[in-house]
Amino acid sequence: MASSAFLPELGTQVVVPVAAVVGIAFAVLQWVLVSKVKLSPEPRRGDGSAGKSGAGAGASEYLIEEEEGLNEHNVVVKYAEIQNAISEGATSFLFTEYKYVGLFMGIFAVLIFLFLGSVESFSTKSQPCHYSKGKTCKPALANAIFSTIAFVLGAVTSLVSGFLGMKIATYANARTTLEARKGVGKAFITAFRSGAVMGFLLAASGLFVLYIAINLFGIYYGDDWEGLYEAITGYGLGGSSMALFGRVGGGIYTKAADVGADLVGKVERNIPEDDPRNPAVIADNVGDNVGDIAGMGSDLFGSYAESSCAALVVASISSFGINHEFTPMLYPLLISSVGIIACLITTLFATDFFEIKAVDEIEPALKKQLIISTAVMTVGIALVSWLGLPYTFTIFNFGVQKTVYNWQLFLCVAVGLWAGLVIGFVTEYYTSNAYSPVQDVADSCRTGAATNVIFGLALGYKSVIIPIFAIAFSIFLSFSLAAMYGVAVAALGMLSTIATGLAIDAYGPISDNAGGIAEMAGMSHRIRERTDALDAAGNTTAAIGKGFAIGSAALVSLALFGAFVSRAEISTVDVLTPKVFIGLIVGAMLPYWFSAMTMKSVGSAALKMVEEVRRQFNTIPGLMEGITKPDYATCVKISTDASIKEMIPPGALVMLTPLIVGIFFGVETLSGVLAGALVSGVQIAISASNTGGAWDNAKKYIEAGASEHARTLGPKGSDPHKAAVIGDTIGDPLKDTSGPSLNILIKLMAVESLVFAPFFATHGGILFKWL
Amino acid sequence: MASSAFLPELGTQVVVPVAAVVGIAFAVLQWVLVSKVKLSPEPRRGDGSAGKSGAGAGASEYLIEEEEGLNEHNVVVKYAEIQNAISEGATSFLFTEYKYVGLFMGIFAVLIFLFLGSVESFSTKSQPCHYSKGKTCKPALANAIFSTIAFVLGAVTSLVSGFLGMKIATYANARTTLEARKGVGKAFITAFRSGAVMGFLLAASGLFVLYIAINLFGIYYGDDWEGLYEAITGYGLGGSSMALFGRVGGGIYTKAADVGADLVGKVERNIPEDDPRNPAVIADNVGDNVGDIAGMGSDLFGSYAESSCAALVVASISSFGINHEFTPMLYPLLISSVGIIACLITTLFATDFFEIKAVDEIEPALKKQLIISTAVMTVGIALVSWLGLPYTFTIFNFGVQKTVYNWQLFLCVAVGLWAGLVIGFVTEYYTSNAYSPVQDVADSCRTGAATNVIFGLALGYKSVIIPIFAIAFSIFLSFSLAAMYGVAVAALGMLSTIATGLAIDAYGPISDNAGGIAEMAGMSHRIRERTDALDAAGNTTAAIGKGFAIGSAALVSLALFGAFVSRAEISTVDVLTPKVFIGLIVGAMLPYWFSAMTMKSVGSAALKMVEEVRRQFNTIPGLMEGITKPDYATCVKISTDASIKEMIPPGALVMLTPLIVGIFFGVETLSGVLAGALVSGVQIAISASNTGGAWDNAKKYIEAGASEHARTLGPKGSDPHKAAVIGDTIGDPLKDTSGPSLNILIKLMAVESLVFAPFFATHGGILFKWL
Repeated sequence: MASSAFLPELGTQVVVPVAAVVGIAFAVLQWVLVSKVKLSPEPRRGDGSAGKSGAGAGASEYLIEEEEGLNEHNVVVKYAEIQNAISEGATSFLFTEYKYVGLFMGIFAVLIFLFLGSVESFSTKSQPCHYSKGKTCKPALANAIFSTIAFVLGAVTSLVSGFLGMKIATYANARTTLEARKGVGKAFITAFRSGAVMGFLLAASGLFVLYIAINLFGIYYGDDWEGLYEAITGYGLGGSSMALFGRVGGGIYTKAADVGADLVGKVERNIPEDDPRNPAVIADNVGDNVGDIAGMGSDLFGSYAESSCAALVVASISSFGINHEFTPMLYPLLISSVGIIACLITTLFATDFFEIKAVDEIEPALKKQLIISTAVMTVGIALVSWLGLPYTFTIFNFGVQKTVYNWQLFLCVAVGLWAGLVIGFVTEYYTSNAYSPVQDVADSCRTGAATNVIFGLALGYKSVIIPIFAIAFSIFLSFSLAAMYGVAVAALGMLSTIATGLAIDAYGPISDNAGGIAEMAGMSHRIRERTDALDAAGNTTAAIGKGFAIGSAALVSLALFGAFVSRAEISTVDVLTPKVFIGLIVGAMLPYWFSAMTMKSVGSAALKMVEEVRRQFNTIPGLMEGITKPDYATCVKISTDASIKEMIPPGALVMLTPLIVGIFFGVETLSGVLAGALVSGVQIAISASNTGGAWDNAKKYIEAGASEHARTLGPKGSDPHKAAVIGDTIGDPLKDTSGPSLNILIKLMAVESLVFAPFFATHGGILFKWL
Repeated sequence: MASSAFLPELGTQVVVPVAAVVGIAFAVLQWVLVSKVKLSPEPRRGDGSAGKSGAGAGASEYLIEEEEGLNEHNVVVKYAEIQNAISEGATSFLFTEYKYVGLFMGIFAVLIFLFLGSVESFSTKSQPCHYSKGKTCKPALANAIFSTIAFVLGAVTSLVSGFLGMKIATYANARTTLEARKGVGKAFITAFRSGAVMGFLLAASGLFVLYIAINLFGIYYGDDWEGLYEAITGYGLGGSSMALFGRVGGGIYTKAADVGADLVGKVERNIPEDDPRNPAVIADNVGDNVGDIAGMGSDLFGSYAESSCAALVVASISSFGINHEFTPMLYPLLISSVGIIACLITTLFATDFFEIKAVDEIEPALKKQLIISTAVMTVGIALVSWLGLPYTFTIFNFGVQKTVYNWQLFLCVAVGLWAGLVIGFVTEYYTSNAYSPVQDVADSCRTGAATNVIFGLALGYKSVIIPIFAIAFSIFLSFSLAAMYGVAVAALGMLSTIATGLAIDAYGPISDNAGGIAEMAGMSHRIRERTDALDAAGNTTAAIGKGFAIGSAALVSLALFGAFVSRAEISTVDVLTPKVFIGLIVGAMLPYWFSAMTMKSVGSAALKMVEEVRRQFNTIPGLMEGITKPDYATCVKISTDASIKEMIPPGALVMLTPLIVGIFFGVETLSGVLAGALVSGVQIAISASNTGGAWDNAKKYIEAGASEHARTLGPKGSDPHKAAVIGDTIGDPLKDTSGPSLNILIKLMAVESLVFAPFFATHGGILFKWL
């Protein structure tokens, strides 16, 4: 333990902010490149967000390869119009959502302050430290105040991340369509660059804010690292709470619109997806941006914030923290810093070193991103572990200190990173229509929707197996080597390539929207085919992104859970005690309860949407003929109202469960609940997201008709295709509402328990005390 | 501990076998009453099973209320023919199944002997006891031999139970149809009596065999109760292993046929369910008997055997066992004995005290059965606890003895019993079309199959909440009062009314078959309506039965798990150790893996069935016109082959997992696996079975058109009805294959671990030892 890290404190103080700034600069650069695609053909009609970036000359320059028979001017005007409508719809929804969520956050911030403040009856006196025996730490009241500040900071960062992501995506979608006219390669680069803007902005700003917060809080806390990092966990809680509402609200919004639009448009009226005659089509496209982009951005930001906080809080009571070794203490942030650089290099492979020329190169290119980023990052981790850590040190392990070597910590981070890659590949295998699982599901459409659903559900269940083994293996290795700290850095390892992960994840909805715009603007079939190919790859990458989110959530939750148990001062969580076991079985039930709520919400909202769309088709004359315009605004309003109203009960379930269980049943039962929710939720989340992805791509497989087999099932409108559309519709809430919200459920309950742990440990379990 | 039970040993030696014999006699009486319904109109054509019970005069006597326009003679001849075909198909399938399962059982019996024998290297020397310190117990080799014998005994009893159940059901179905001509009340009584034959036969013979085995084994074991009851657990393992294959094989059989028949018949050809022109119709009806009757019979018998064994093994190392107090030792068997009597009284309420006159009285009558049996049994438990237990005694609780009062044990049994009732009611609420949940699902068919599926899945997820709270509450109470013994007797409490539970459960498939026979024999619409009403109530009771099976499985597994942990000599199962946690998360994944296998199997087998049915419709001239007969036998063969082949992988998964985990990873990881599978499996099992039940009844709700609302969705063949049929088809494998097999998965892994515990404790965990 005598050795210390190579990298001096000053070095760390330079490396972390520089990496963050480089990440942000790279995001801006990508944005500039995307903005070079000009959207406004004439100065008199500029769209809001693109208005600044010059107008006029662009159009003629870029429209040289325009298809024959299409009115150039009209098409571009339509672009701007549609993009404007989507952007405005998304902005107005997010503002409404944030208004309600803001109110909630305010109340919750007060709760945090009151609960944590009451631990020592709001005393301003310093107290003896919990872990550094003999030392004096700051009063509980200070922790209450700083936890609350960190909470608000996390919430605001998450909110801004989601909002910016949405802005970028709506800025990029029409540009992708425009580029699709020049070929699939150009369109791909535009969509991917836009994804990268979001990925780097999020990863870098998350790191930056956390770094600043640690330094600012440190001014007050001084020597009391224990209190400092305990307060910092509020950052994770804030990020995840926002993510919950973003995912649930956005998920309900997007899927109510999507399901509603499809049920009347595709199934009843036999008009194509994204047809401008469909009144719900704008709401659907808005939904992609608020749900899949803003929601997902907040979600992954939350995971990142939480795994950093989990690692930091454990580190603060390990030898790093006790001996005040700054560089190893910030090892989690160093990992993220190197991750940004590794992802930066990786991105160049997609946008600069190679070019995509054909449709079937899209998926391999995205897959290469995963492999390259993982390989580069492995080197990066080795470097950081060598420079940033002493050769040997001790890690807090439920009451005792455990000796760990720096190469062991390298293994912990690396196993998380590589487990992420395995999960990514397995997800790809089960959701891409290039492989037999999705093709089998498509084939089962021959005998109708019922077999399609049976095969799809079975596929989702099966797709859980390998990811769970991968997660179990990483947990076993990192847990054995470095206890909870190992698990936390394994999660960080999985998330270290978050910038690339987010880039390929955001790429999906951008392509989806691009296809929608092509359809709505009445562009030719060829353009639509190209955006469809981008979109099909996007479904797979979306599933991969969800796989990462879920896998990392499992690791993060376990790390947070471990930190909670340490902080709550219980030494074992014995399944064979009644208090823990009832927690375990009830915890395993929560994901079902939560899914029931969110799926029912989507279903009910979709029914309302269907009624409205039907009403418009029946009462607006000339709508089907395309002479009159539908009333898009009413559909947008239905989705908005439904999602705001319906996000409250599931949100309350997640946010209140730890409080109720902790206060009434105490920390043992709460431990059981966390473990149960974790091991059960991971499975449903993975299977729901893969089932949905597979159905979506089985439908696209039939529509694309790229192989002999696919053509026997098609074309669009055939019976197998209809069966596939039903599967796709069922998959919508599974893959975009309930599934991806579940990983927030497990993380959020864990981080909330950790933040409130001091309160539960002192005042919790009143029911059992009373009995 | 000075006090002893009121009931002397002799009394117990009389009460238990007498109750068993009374149960069997009552079953025979019911059978005689059912057999009074004569099926053979003429001596020249008697059907196999009914042949003995006189023929000739019966027909004219019972056909007085025959509908106009139907040829009496033809109809009755057809009955006999159809019933014969079903009975023969079922018998031949079960024989094929048992042949393969028998082979497997033989191999597994050898494994048990070898593994357990090797614990002390096949030594014939006596060894010091594990729990009764200072005493000498029989050698491990004896335990190996007797465990193997008990295993075979359990397997054979389960096999015979299933087979007899099937025989009774096929004997009863045509008789129910015949009685339906006289009114719904008569038909109800026939179906219910037949169910009772099975219920009482199973409950009583299970008790009887166990009682005999204990007494016979006791001759060798003498004073060594520890070894005696350890060996007896083999009985539970045998019962459950058979049940696994019965449920999985039967489930695949029945649903492949059902789905295949529906997809071509109802969806493509627009012919009614059970139409005799459909080539898969006989296979479908055979399936009801081999899956829902034989499989379910084996399943509940397994639960019963296991909970008795779990209670006995814990009791043997508690003060009862150590002090050799015979009556309290056999308390679990006394509970079952009183249960038989309580159910006997309850049955009279359905068959003798009241009569059903209208369709809407069916469900209340079945519900009353649940309430009455629970109420009567509560008194019974009080009596047994008062007479059969000393006022105070000690119970083994993971290494220490815990003092318990007899009224506390009463509470344990009673809480299980009443939790069962709660689960029953909740299941009824979510699956009966008399309440809003199913009506909402039916309503969602308005917008197509997709919303139907979304609402149905959400319903299933939601239906988990209250049962889990009920299970958690019973576990908490019984665990806190009397440790694992409390949990085991709570499970027994839930199963104490098994005779009634089985009666109302078997009633379902019998009514289903009766409807099928009515359709196939070309009977009038009115008869079909009556059997449909019986069947709709049957869907609900089937779901209730599954709810009981799942709830009791959760309790049983926990008790077995506790016994395993005690026997494996580990004192805590700490979630926060890597060995346990990876077990927990992998265990929680197993139900998904298992479900994926079984659902895929049903899907693939159904596809084969669809092809065959289509082929017959396309190539057999005159089939659609009803002039020529379809080739039923080929369809029966497809189902048989598919189920035999496909039951092996899921069976292997369940049977091998505890062995592999125990041998390679050791008892801690295995504990995690058991806990994970338990808490995750219960949720999927409940939701799958309720979702399926709800879809089936939503379809029946639309078909019956009994309310204004239902009529707006119908009639048969309308778009909402078609959507409902799709939901029903999807629900088939969920509710009859994967869902109900899951409770066997969790029980079986637990009991297998318990049986092999001595081996794992000595030789297990070689991977970690080697590392």
